[in-house]
Amino acid sequence: MNSIKYYLTRVSEIFDQETFLAEPRELYEPIDYTLRLGGKRIRPTLLLAANALFGGREEEARNAALGIETFHNFTLLHDDLMDRSPLRRGQPTVFCKWDENTAILSGDTMFALAWRYFLRQPTPHLQEILQCFNETAIEVCEGQQKDMNFESCTLDKVSLDDYLDMIRQKTAVLLAAALKIGALYAGAPSGEVDKLWQFGIHLGLAFQLQDDLLDGYGDTAVFGKKTGQDIRDNKKTFLPLTALALCSPEQKNELASLFAPQNPLDEEEKVRRVMNLYNTVDLRPKIEKAIADEFAKASRQLDDIQAPEDLKTPLREMLESLNGRKK
Amino acid sequence: MNSIKYYLTRVSEIFDQETFLAEPRELYEPIDYTLRLGGKRIRPTLLLAANALFGGREEEARNAALGIETFHNFTLLHDDLMDRSPLRRGQPTVFCKWDENTAILSGDTMFALAWRYFLRQPTPHLQEILQCFNETAIEVCEGQQKDMNFESCTLDKVSLDDYLDMIRQKTAVLLAAALKIGALYAGAPSGEVDKLWQFGIHLGLAFQLQDDLLDGYGDTAVFGKKTGQDIRDNKKTFLPLTALALCSPEQKNELASLFAPQNPLDEEEKVRRVMNLYNTVDLRPKIEKAIADEFAKASRQLDDIQAPEDLKTPLREMLESLNGRKK
Repeated sequence: MNSIKYYLTRVSEIFDQETFLAEPRELYEPIDYTLRLGGKRIRPTLLLAANALFGGREEEARNAALGIETFHNFTLLHDDLMDRSPLRRGQPTVFCKWDENTAILSGDTMFALAWRYFLRQPTPHLQEILQCFNETAIEVCEGQQKDMNFESCTLDKVSLDDYLDMIRQKTAVLLAAALKIGALYAGAPSGEVDKLWQFGIHLGLAFQLQDDLLDGYGDTAVFGKKTGQDIRDNKKTFLPLTALALCSPEQKNELASLFAPQNPLDEEEKVRRVMNLYNTVDLRPKIEKAIADEFAKASRQLDDIQAPEDLKTPLREMLESLNGRKK
Repeated sequence: MNSIKYYLTRVSEIFDQETFLAEPRELYEPIDYTLRLGGKRIRPTLLLAANALFGGREEEARNAALGIETFHNFTLLHDDLMDRSPLRRGQPTVFCKWDENTAILSGDTMFALAWRYFLRQPTPHLQEILQCFNETAIEVCEGQQKDMNFESCTLDKVSLDDYLDMIRQKTAVLLAAALKIGALYAGAPSGEVDKLWQFGIHLGLAFQLQDDLLDGYGDTAVFGKKTGQDIRDNKKTFLPLTALALCSPEQKNELASLFAPQNPLDEEEKVRRVMNLYNTVDLRPKIEKAIADEFAKASRQLDDIQAPEDLKTPLREMLESLNGRKK
């Protein structure tokens, strides 16, 4: 139980044992398809590890683990529809494999199925757990809206703080909520729950900033996909927003025009020019430092938590494995 | 407090006092727009009346009233997108006024906001209330899927029982849940809650069957919209499904071909022929009887409930006003 692999395996077994098919099949087949695509399943794994950290029993946290991953996959399903993404985990997305209406309604149903998992499990902390889950859900929606807002505006209209707030809502709070909910099922003291929440926020920010870094500097052979997609999509990520502060006025204008919604340049030429500008201002080490800082903050929160050191090991391993990831 | 008008007014005041706007405004403006469009607000009105029936206090049921109507409007928002309906309550629908992505994400957020209302209110019956709400939400999604399935199949593939099951899920359970939840907040005994649930189911079925009737036989001047839309849309409603059982083999074939997905007839000619066939088999009195039967069953459930007669008056008035509606 004192390794992250143990919890990853348990989450995988829990999902394998679960049935997601029901009637009408037109509604539930896309749900089963989505939940069986796999993925890293970081959130339920964190939830189980956080529960064990405070002496919780897996059978009490099991439903919440299923619930948090079902919710996460609902957000991916609707995000993929809104972003018109054809692939998820190398497979066709629901709106491509079926259609838009199926993606809307199966997604809505998954949100309700996530609630069903949470409501199935009696606990003295029900209201606090459900409020944490629901406020997180609202933040994820707000973060997604901000992300969409940023797509249609120019680079100078998005501040680094706006961006960090957006990724905190869209990505970090759900990791933090998974940890908090796991701890609440175990009856952890509120001070320790707060530290675990902060651990999750920093871990989530580091994770998203790494995504941004890998999109620019990933090794395509290891990364598994083409780099530069954020540049092609004019995404105002941590990279261009940090680069702005390092640029001369001329370079700022160049970068802003490269990220303008209707830049006429050939896509690959645009990627080449943006990366060239990043290299000129020596961007990469600054991004790497920012990521390392977030991981370090996460690590310090974990140090501060009053719990047996050996039970912290899985969470440390998760942090280390995310820290070292190349894809 | 002993008239339905009192509760309708209270619901209206509760909504007027509530703020639905927040940041980011691109997410919340469509939500505010939707919740301010009004409509009959039958569900929160039933919830408050059911709560009072068992001696509940309005301040305990108020949040649930907001929650149930927010949920209902979320389903309308997504249904309008899936059905590509341009108008709701005479105003442009969200996906027309804004766009599809706004309709998806604002709808998702409304589902979570409904939960926020429910979670705001402490009650010893929290788990039961939330389970009732959530299982209802799942049934509404299943009902919507079945409704979409029926659209793409031929008339002979849908049985009257299939149809009644679909409208039970899509319409009736939410009315029943509103009543049940109101009663649970008041701590009503489970036997009485069950009768109230059945009252809601029969009321909901009667309400939907009336919709079907009015689409065929409504007085356009009073009904406020063109009749025959279900026929134009090939909807397998209670009318054609009941008519089938009254038809000769030749008439059956004619009706089936009129409701076939790719009938080449001019729409108005199709409406004329279908209505002509309905009149030939004397359909209207059969439909009116089925509706009257459902209202009578609802009324008997209300008779059986152990509660002060004067407190039942608002629910009787709601039944009577729905029974007499011409639009």
